[in-house]
Amino acid sequence: MDGRAALYLEDVGEGQTFTGAARHGMTAEAIKAFAADFDPQPFHLDEATAQPTFFNGLAASGWHTAAATMRLIVDALPLAGGVIGGGGEISWPRPTRPGDVLRVVCTVETVTPSRSRPDRGMLTLRTETLNQRDEPVQVMVTRLVVPRRGTAGPR
Amino acid sequence: MDGRAALYLEDVGEGQTFTGAARHGMTAEAIKAFAADFDPQPFHLDEATAQPTFFNGLAASGWHTAAATMRLIVDALPLAGGVIGGGGEISWPRPTRPGDVLRVVCTVETVTPSRSRPDRGMLTLRTETLNQRDEPVQVMVTRLVVPRRGTAGPR
Repeated sequence: MDGRAALYLEDVGEGQTFTGAARHGMTAEAIKAFAADFDPQPFHLDEATAQPTFFNGLAASGWHTAAATMRLIVDALPLAGGVIGGGGEISWPRPTRPGDVLRVVCTVETVTPSRSRPDRGMLTLRTETLNQRDEPVQVMVTRLVVPRRGTAGPR
Repeated sequence: MDGRAALYLEDVGEGQTFTGAARHGMTAEAIKAFAADFDPQPFHLDEATAQPTFFNGLAASGWHTAAATMRLIVDALPLAGGVIGGGGEISWPRPTRPGDVLRVVCTVETVTPSRSRPDRGMLTLRTETLNQRDEPVQVMVTRLVVPRRGTAGPR
């Protein structure tokens, strides 16, 4: 957490947008290293073996794009208690390529206080991950647990 | 791809299950290293700072669990053309902890030949990621592109 005020459930409204200032550059080296650890398939590991595949060239694992997106959300959204997701929906409309520079735009879709637990509520957050041409490489809608003001927060 | 025959759309049936033989151990060191790169929040970075948080102790980033799961799916499911996902739904019913040993059970939910593209079809695959107590730490349903037999496959 940097110097910004932490946001509680009461501080966030439906339709509110958080445009992250941070950027995440995806290098060929990072794409291959992530793939070697977690998604060792020809189209993520090497330019030459990637050429005759579905991707027609080296592409990042979708999970690499998802992980980079999380880094950008943590920067963009200073929630009290942290960015804690219970799950959601994810899609990759186009591949992330070497040289792409990613950023996020997060939009609050719903804000719902918990009925049973007065210390917390739920946000649904739509996050678009955009490349340097403002094309979405990932669209995600996640459910986040957020503490209410004046409480110890979700434990 | 190892010595197993690659699977085409015709080789896979609804309800078919793939129980991966591989295991993925999650160490505290790996949890912290992934978090430093992609999800630098107190509950993923350090045992002491994690204690008074929502997680009550060090927990892996959900995206780390997702990435480890992809590694296990690639091992469990020898699809022709590779495991290529367009997106899906994901949830984390409980945290992944240091020392957890993960495995996957993948179940084919639907098999749908493409109407417009005779070289391919779509699988929906439910993947449960289980810890060493057979408790699910992640449940995911993804849409995969799979080539049909006797074609060059999706390009």
